[in-house]
Amino acid sequence: MKVVLAGAGNVANHLGPALQKSGHDILQVIGRSESLVKSLAKKLRTSHGCTFNDIRTDADAIILMVRDDSVKEYARLIPSGEFTIMHTSGAVSAGVFENKFANYGVLYPVQTFSKTEKVKMNDVPFCIEGSNKTSLNKIRKLISPVSEKIYQINEDDRKFIHISAVFASNFSNHMYTIADTLLKSRKINFEILKPLISQTAEKIKHISPKKAQTGPASRGDSGTVSNHLKWLKGQDEFREIYALLSKSIQNLNGPVL
Amino acid sequence: MKVVLAGAGNVANHLGPALQKSGHDILQVIGRSESLVKSLAKKLRTSHGCTFNDIRTDADAIILMVRDDSVKEYARLIPSGEFTIMHTSGAVSAGVFENKFANYGVLYPVQTFSKTEKVKMNDVPFCIEGSNKTSLNKIRKLISPVSEKIYQINEDDRKFIHISAVFASNFSNHMYTIADTLLKSRKINFEILKPLISQTAEKIKHISPKKAQTGPASRGDSGTVSNHLKWLKGQDEFREIYALLSKSIQNLNGPVL
Repeated sequence: MKVVLAGAGNVANHLGPALQKSGHDILQVIGRSESLVKSLAKKLRTSHGCTFNDIRTDADAIILMVRDDSVKEYARLIPSGEFTIMHTSGAVSAGVFENKFANYGVLYPVQTFSKTEKVKMNDVPFCIEGSNKTSLNKIRKLISPVSEKIYQINEDDRKFIHISAVFASNFSNHMYTIADTLLKSRKINFEILKPLISQTAEKIKHISPKKAQTGPASRGDSGTVSNHLKWLKGQDEFREIYALLSKSIQNLNGPVL
Repeated sequence: MKVVLAGAGNVANHLGPALQKSGHDILQVIGRSESLVKSLAKKLRTSHGCTFNDIRTDADAIILMVRDDSVKEYARLIPSGEFTIMHTSGAVSAGVFENKFANYGVLYPVQTFSKTEKVKMNDVPFCIEGSNKTSLNKIRKLISPVSEKIYQINEDDRKFIHISAVFASNFSNHMYTIADTLLKSRKINFEILKPLISQTAEKIKHISPKKAQTGPASRGDSGTVSNHLKWLKGQDEFREIYALLSKSIQNLNGPVL
């Protein structure tokens, strides 16, 4: 399939090479940031462009991989055509395409992408939507050589999967950042927490996260919870988070007294 | 070394077998819950007792593995002797032992233990403290056949490691529980988030969590953040957590605008 990548950020840098490796023909990388676009085009040995006038409308598929806030604007800039256009956002409606394009949809990967970190693309779940049978089939055909985990999902469910992914990934990672920040304040290496972090993520493969919960809040160790809050004095934001999440653990799991 | 396990919960069920496997002689399992104590003693083919009068004071080491709130009380119930006594809590002072025992300390494993989940014990970091050289050496000798990751750490640092572990593990796991709860409310299987959770925990082995951060808050996608808050209407607790953590991500990482 002839594919145009519109965007050259983290998603494009993982999805682009995976699509090429699985046999698709990457016609072009298009985007605003010349340095990012050039770098990805070079990696894929393909051409690039920085204005939407240059876009190859003879493509079979155009994949818009830009910030959620920019999807609408980019959709306006891309000329209409026979191709199927899709975005990769978890939160943006497919409706942003409907007034201009006949064939459109969504290709949302439920994964976190950082530039330098490898991702097993065949393990990534992809949520797909299509404006009609043609576009749905095309999106499925586009992604099926990359991953077998394809979920045809409606817009409302996708949005909830996205919110859940923010909790499970972005907020979990922020908990690691807070831990790192606290350890740094005492010159302790973050290394000491790595086995714990691995084990926490590993456990939920076999038991529900509710069953996997440990720690003072879930044990009902109220003395430790209040000591922790005392020791966090002067770190108001972390204290507020600690108090709110401890309360929430007790609300959801109930203290095991 | 002759060891008494005082407690038969999650920590004892992982540490006990690891100590036995590495050559120590588990003299006894002592604790209040007869069923838990019996079950662990059976697993270790050793004797058990439910009152502290029965405790074998001819042991080299007594390891108190009970809820933080109970350490003090249990220390009061155990008769004094020549052995080295230690607790495994991250948050409790070693000072709970000082009026009664000459040789005491702390053996704090930086790990989350659930009964059914296997843990690579040789990968677990142990923070140790001792009231004197004798007890410190004994605690080191006790644990060194189990794990090579032994950190001699002072009380204040241990407390901060414990708070950090609560963020990195207990609170991260709670984020998984919230995600699971949200997905369940729409009958979506939690399975869809597992590759994402693995990858999130995997990333921080190579890059700092601050660099690994992705998602709408860190991208400065304020439209998506406010949409998510809108879609969480009626889930007041989750909304509050979402808002607080998004703000905190922006405070710590700064929005990449």
